[in-house]
Amino acid sequence: MIHTTLMKTLGIRHPVILAPMGGVSGGRLAAAVSNAGGLGLVGGGYGDPAWLDTELAIAAKAATQPWGVGLITWTANQQRVEQCLRYGPAAFMLSFGDPRPYARAIKAAGCALICQVQDLAGALLARDAGADIVVAQGTEAGGHGGLRSTFPLVPAVVDAVAPIPVAAAGGIADGRGLAAALMLGAQAALIGTRFYACSEALGSDEAKRRIAAGHGDETVRTRVFDIVRGYDWPAPYTGRALRNDFLQRWHEHEPELQTQAAALRDPFLSAAALGDCDTAMVWAGEAIDLIHDIPSAASLLASIVAQAESQIRQAHAALAL
Amino acid sequence: MIHTTLMKTLGIRHPVILAPMGGVSGGRLAAAVSNAGGLGLVGGGYGDPAWLDTELAIAAKAATQPWGVGLITWTANQQRVEQCLRYGPAAFMLSFGDPRPYARAIKAAGCALICQVQDLAGALLARDAGADIVVAQGTEAGGHGGLRSTFPLVPAVVDAVAPIPVAAAGGIADGRGLAAALMLGAQAALIGTRFYACSEALGSDEAKRRIAAGHGDETVRTRVFDIVRGYDWPAPYTGRALRNDFLQRWHEHEPELQTQAAALRDPFLSAAALGDCDTAMVWAGEAIDLIHDIPSAASLLASIVAQAESQIRQAHAALAL
Repeated sequence: MIHTTLMKTLGIRHPVILAPMGGVSGGRLAAAVSNAGGLGLVGGGYGDPAWLDTELAIAAKAATQPWGVGLITWTANQQRVEQCLRYGPAAFMLSFGDPRPYARAIKAAGCALICQVQDLAGALLARDAGADIVVAQGTEAGGHGGLRSTFPLVPAVVDAVAPIPVAAAGGIADGRGLAAALMLGAQAALIGTRFYACSEALGSDEAKRRIAAGHGDETVRTRVFDIVRGYDWPAPYTGRALRNDFLQRWHEHEPELQTQAAALRDPFLSAAALGDCDTAMVWAGEAIDLIHDIPSAASLLASIVAQAESQIRQAHAALAL
Repeated sequence: MIHTTLMKTLGIRHPVILAPMGGVSGGRLAAAVSNAGGLGLVGGGYGDPAWLDTELAIAAKAATQPWGVGLITWTANQQRVEQCLRYGPAAFMLSFGDPRPYARAIKAAGCALICQVQDLAGALLARDAGADIVVAQGTEAGGHGGLRSTFPLVPAVVDAVAPIPVAAAGGIADGRGLAAALMLGAQAALIGTRFYACSEALGSDEAKRRIAAGHGDETVRTRVFDIVRGYDWPAPYTGRALRNDFLQRWHEHEPELQTQAAALRDPFLSAAALGDCDTAMVWAGEAIDLIHDIPSAASLLASIVAQAESQIRQAHAALAL
């Protein structure tokens, strides 16, 4: 069994955190990850209050172990933070923006404050905000992210925010990745795309099928899906998605898309609601090369942890040869 | 002591390969890395024959252990490959382009063929070329590289080319990175920027000083320095460099730079020859956050290996708690 300080802080049995993927990490998936010994985080996305009420209630009811919630910081507000806190999460993650306006309310509620950062400057801001845990997220992550890569970012953040525990995010989809994250000085892995292709995840079956079949060479960071949906993400954040027809048409034609976005929005959202993955985005990280099935969250988590332990044992045994 | 099949293939005592950095990895640095138990590779860059003769002769004379050479594949030709082979390298690395035209001559000379790749498609090409070792290089690397990141690329390449041994490159500057690379399934780390800031490296003292002082947030992938020098690198390759005055002026103004490149070339090359790092590029990977000194190659290599072993031992000890 792997043991880290971060696990004690969160009261979890395995060093695995579910990324709070908007529209994907619902209450059922979050509770499944928590009940299997990790930390499940409901993905609050852009903060739709009705969706949050539904999914937070599911998580609160189904989880027998600590669970949490995550919001996109630049779209959050005090009202939304308080709505989430009413459901009694043990952990609250903020990502993409300055966490300081919400830190006091979160910590006053007894929640562990998890701040996800994409560069060293963000890590220092998280430390100043009083983060209990810092997540260093590399650009290889699916969905929104920044410019730095996981491999060099994690140890740099570990050194910069010590003794605050750090989790690694971006590019981790199996036990090899979890073991590597621990070697870099992280105390847990935050995993997104791999849990998207899980039976408990929200999102269409076709999206899950494409993740299980796709390759990392086919993912790209883009603003296309934010532009068409009318989300004004601040620089440097973009979303990593699998190439599909819509992306092929508009990627690197963003100025033209911007002029037509208003007219394209309703058809796009209708296609997305129908699960049309040729049009709607399938957020996916580069690590999809390692994803070949759509298991339950509990069996996935168990296999990731077992493989990580096996990698560590094998490396140690080889040292003694 | 770490043991891997790759080390047996190359006849080396430590799982560390010096990146063949053009103009930086000269014969003295390559021999120092090899004599310390790693594999030193002379960086052939754009294949200047006189420079190669000088540096290959130094390596051949100074190295008491296996050493090698690396060329940029798309600038190579049979004559240059044969020139290198005459100095008796034990290993020959090709990167950035199709290695197949040179594979036969290299392997016929008894050299281990090392192919560095930047994506999964390149890995399959390397396998078809008969590579003895495949290097999976992430975009966080200093100097030229591709789009994929080290963390998810390495295990994907390991799976794709098995049983060919894989080395990890990009973002590795200390023992944490070496240990993480091993967990991902790599059998060695190929390290560039960290060895640039070594006493035996060619390159100006000011460049080494900037690497030791710089931060990963300050590096960027760019075509600016290729355009001004007149090197027509094929897509998707760009060079990662530290931000400086020249880069600030021209990055994201590439079309304008293209029109002025002919006039700017001589002043640029003169500044570079004088070690003016406000103008000339300082290639640097994202891992420079982890670099704070300019040691000898031998002491650096020893400390990287010792830290990697320590990380593995600590993780194993924590399992048993």
